[in-house]
Amino acid sequence: MPEWAQQIRKGNVRALARAASAVENRTPAADALLRKLFPHTGNALVIGITGPPGAGKSTLADGIIRLLRREEQRVGVIAVDPTSPYSGGAILGDRIRMQSHYADPGVFIRSMATRGHLGGLAPATTDMALLFDAAGMDAVIVETVGVGQDEVDIARLADVTAVVLVPGMGDDVQAIKAGIMEIAGVFLINKADQPGADRLEREIHAMLSLAHHDGPTPPVVRVVASEGGGIAEALHAIRSVAGDRGGHERSEHIWRRRLLEMYRERLLNRIPAAELDSAARAVALRRKDPYSIVDEWLRRI
Amino acid sequence: MPEWAQQIRKGNVRALARAASAVENRTPAADALLRKLFPHTGNALVIGITGPPGAGKSTLADGIIRLLRREEQRVGVIAVDPTSPYSGGAILGDRIRMQSHYADPGVFIRSMATRGHLGGLAPATTDMALLFDAAGMDAVIVETVGVGQDEVDIARLADVTAVVLVPGMGDDVQAIKAGIMEIAGVFLINKADQPGADRLEREIHAMLSLAHHDGPTPPVVRVVASEGGGIAEALHAIRSVAGDRGGHERSEHIWRRRLLEMYRERLLNRIPAAELDSAARAVALRRKDPYSIVDEWLRRI
Repeated sequence: MPEWAQQIRKGNVRALARAASAVENRTPAADALLRKLFPHTGNALVIGITGPPGAGKSTLADGIIRLLRREEQRVGVIAVDPTSPYSGGAILGDRIRMQSHYADPGVFIRSMATRGHLGGLAPATTDMALLFDAAGMDAVIVETVGVGQDEVDIARLADVTAVVLVPGMGDDVQAIKAGIMEIAGVFLINKADQPGADRLEREIHAMLSLAHHDGPTPPVVRVVASEGGGIAEALHAIRSVAGDRGGHERSEHIWRRRLLEMYRERLLNRIPAAELDSAARAVALRRKDPYSIVDEWLRRI
Repeated sequence: MPEWAQQIRKGNVRALARAASAVENRTPAADALLRKLFPHTGNALVIGITGPPGAGKSTLADGIIRLLRREEQRVGVIAVDPTSPYSGGAILGDRIRMQSHYADPGVFIRSMATRGHLGGLAPATTDMALLFDAAGMDAVIVETVGVGQDEVDIARLADVTAVVLVPGMGDDVQAIKAGIMEIAGVFLINKADQPGADRLEREIHAMLSLAHHDGPTPPVVRVVASEGGGIAEALHAIRSVAGDRGGHERSEHIWRRRLLEMYRERLLNRIPAAELDSAARAVALRRKDPYSIVDEWLRRI
């Protein structure tokens, strides 16, 4: 174990790949490894990139990776892949776009699949980001597809999250705002050369002016990711939001959420699926009441 | 206690109102009461109504309540009010629209506010629905605003959820589909007399044809809620979806989720906020690792 951790810290890619698999499969070895590595984390900037399908998140991530590489930063990429009925095609396309970096030893890319964990994707993603952090990555990009529940959970755990939107969303920035407002550190208008970009920007500003923010108002940056336009400005905005938020207080806030997610995951995983099934059956048939069942679970652990 | 439960079952509105407050405030008395009442539940149809702000959910709920009342059904309404920066205005307007029922003793309306419970809104909403069920309501309508995480959690716990959409959402049914596809039992196109209704219907069908469904494909019904058009068809669709799903299997499935939510809420509430804060601080400063902290919590309970 100390050997494994050391190899990871030295930048051994095979040791890192093995660790990433262990983290994704939630093995006990992963827990022990992460415990060992934890003191060496806290250096990477964890950047979330999220938004609706087709918004160009991967092209944008690609552009940001290029810039970071030009600064000789090491970059970890976690592509979160909810087993959505839709994700198949999009994900394949996205991965192909990112393949330009596969040959670059300064970029480590890892996809994460859902697999129906009771505890959700968020704790596994956090662990993966910590692993990359301990392995000496300067930045970890967490790309999530869609704006569902898992994505919001994950984005809340990043240091800063960029929400990517595109023109032509009509009146409907509204519809996605509920989850997004909470997590957006930066808004990126991609495909900003298309008609409707002005309108989208106005809508975002209108939305922001209505919201009661804890911190500063998220900046809105226009990009044309496919041509590399505005990417430097986007990265600058991401970094300055992360900086403004103040290291410690922000970090404590994030750890509050992460600890709860970890606790929750471990607890949910303690109930065997068969037991849960039979409990649900008993309640559905009104043979038992749910309050007594949950009490019993609580007493037992 | 037996007295209180009996009064509720007899339809005493004051006893019910007191119980609803206890449930919302998560008091120990509420737990004991629900345990007592649970054997008398399982009769009400729990209908979720969700969708983006401005889709006309309350007007629609209002129409459905009217129909149910014509059948002399007793109806409970739970209006879930996430403390979103946006909800203020919308909620006020919505509540006013429902006030026509406040004078009707066959309709019991209750708003639920978030209040930052660690365990989320879903367990409290489930308990409230069970309370209404035990009080002899034939239907419980759970109306949620927006399509955020809390709303999805809540909708998953209903017997059937109607997702309300309106024309003019552009290409962007997409953007909200991630969370919604999982929970939609019925799609309702409201304001179906407006331009774009055909297009929206095509988009919904296209979306559904791509999805891998467990059960039957959700029906799509057009309504003009403000004029009462299509409401009877909407209610019919909701009931037949609830019926098709097969009482038991569906009920077991829902109870599986509900039990986990209840378990999760009770566990999360066991960690005092001050302790969570200081743990988060220790981790942010790298004085402790999160894995050891969570282990300690797990050992202690």
